[in-house]
Amino acid sequence: MRTTEMMNTYPAEISVDRDLLARTIDMLVACAQACTSCADACLSEETVTELRKCIRTNLDCADIYAATARILSRHTGYDANLTHAQLQACAQACESCGDECEQHAGHHEHCSVCAEACRACAQACNELLAAIA
Amino acid sequence: MRTTEMMNTYPAEISVDRDLLARTIDMLVACAQACTSCADACLSEETVTELRKCIRTNLDCADIYAATARILSRHTGYDANLTHAQLQACAQACESCGDECEQHAGHHEHCSVCAEACRACAQACNELLAAIA
Amino acid sequence: MRTTEMMNTYPAEISVDRDLLARTIDMLVACAQACTSCADACLSEETVTELRKCIRTNLDCADIYAATARILSRHTGYDANLTHAQLQACAQACESCGDECEQHAGHHEHCSVCAEACRACAQACNELLAAIA
Amino acid sequence: MRTTEMMNTYPAEISVDRDLLARTIDMLVACAQACTSCADACLSEETVTELRKCIRTNLDCADIYAATARILSRHTGYDANLTHAQLQACAQACESCGDECEQHAGHHEHCSVCAEACRACAQACNELLAAIA
Repeated sequence: MRTTEMMNTYPAEISVDRDLLARTIDMLVACAQACTSCADACLSEETVTELRKCIRTNLDCADIYAATARILSRHTGYDANLTHAQLQACAQACESCGDECEQHAGHHEHCSVCAEACRACAQACNELLAAIA
Repeated sequence: MRTTEMMNTYPAEISVDRDLLARTIDMLVACAQACTSCADACLSEETVTELRKCIRTNLDCADIYAATARILSRHTGYDANLTHAQLQACAQACESCGDECEQHAGHHEHCSVCAEACRACAQACNELLAAIA
Repeated sequence: MRTTEMMNTYPAEISVDRDLLARTIDMLVACAQACTSCADACLSEETVTELRKCIRTNLDCADIYAATARILSRHTGYDANLTHAQLQACAQACESCGDECEQHAGHHEHCSVCAEACRACAQACNELLAAIA
Repeated sequence: MRTTEMMNTYPAEISVDRDLLARTIDMLVACAQACTSCADACLSEETVTELRKCIRTNLDCADIYAATARILSRHTGYDANLTHAQLQACAQACESCGDECEQHAGHHEHCSVCAEACRACAQACNELLAAIA
């Protein structure tokens, strides 16, 4: 990831703490990839019928994380209300997916890794929410 | 759009009013396309320097609407908290983009059409939020 | 959809036939929604273990159709090579998904509707490919 | 990124070289973020009127890279034709965006970083194309 490197080339001010912002973007991007992978791994498990909700939540979260990472990567014409609302939705998605994957973490290593990624991502989102409040 | 047709083939229960749900999905999908088009049209205007915030908001909204339309198109393993939070972010995005495009509606027809689409989409999101509360 | 309405507000030339372009965008957007719905419906079927490949192809196609619809909705700084290559990938995706869904069309109405949507979308992509060649 | 870690938890066979696959996914994901950032940085430059095509190409590439990264992250029900076609479109996008950003690399550091990211990504896509041929 070149997130910080790109951020440092932005030609105008960025109103948010750059380290926290770059860290959150990186986590969102990594977590989106983990959720896409976890949905696909769940789909190949013999016990797929017990993993339907997990697959669905992973798909939702991959979409929400990807959209949020893009929004946070844009600094031009910053809209605090929009960013705040999307970050709140994202933090909720992290919690939902963390909870769901955690239930299968004992049986499936992909759910364990994904739950851990979502927990770390939730913390970053909440720190960023506090910073931009 | 075959949204209602596809919804009627879903093999399990759908907990939300189907007409309202299908209408909201259709509006989100149409509004995402309008925002992508409006960002591109703004980019080609001579006065692009005055439309930077409009372009950015359009890009954010296209991402948020697309993610929300996907989430609403999934019924398996429904998570009320996640859906509610994303719909709230989406309603805020509709308001932000409607406000921003409206400021340029007198000069640019694409902003006028896009503002109208966002207003209609905001109303659908708020109706759906009320229905699933 | 306000695709044609938005297209007519674009402030510069559009090098491709507008009717064909708008029709293809509308089909891609509708087909992306159908594929997202079909993946979710398959996931809820009792026979989900036989629908794994169908779910995966639907997810891929939803991503490809959405990306292609966005690219076709942008006219500024048109890149013929990029557009052509993405349309070819999209036509292949339509064929793959049409073939896969068709295999389940006798058992699942959502696969039947989705296969039909992919076939129509393939034709629009191929017409557009011929037009921009 | 936990790409390799997640890949190693996949419960079935993966037909492609895992190191090359994980490396390509990571590059695509990083490159998508770089393109989103570069489009936004270009939009804030005083010389935005000269960067219209660069912004547009960056937006297209962010969409194509994100879709391709998702497709490569799925192993269930692998479709060689679809994957091959999308990788070819992606390699073309890398080339288009590398060429466009390179033209502005002397004036804008974000274009320089983004061009370099696209070049590396093109190479990974072409290696993967050769490996799955």
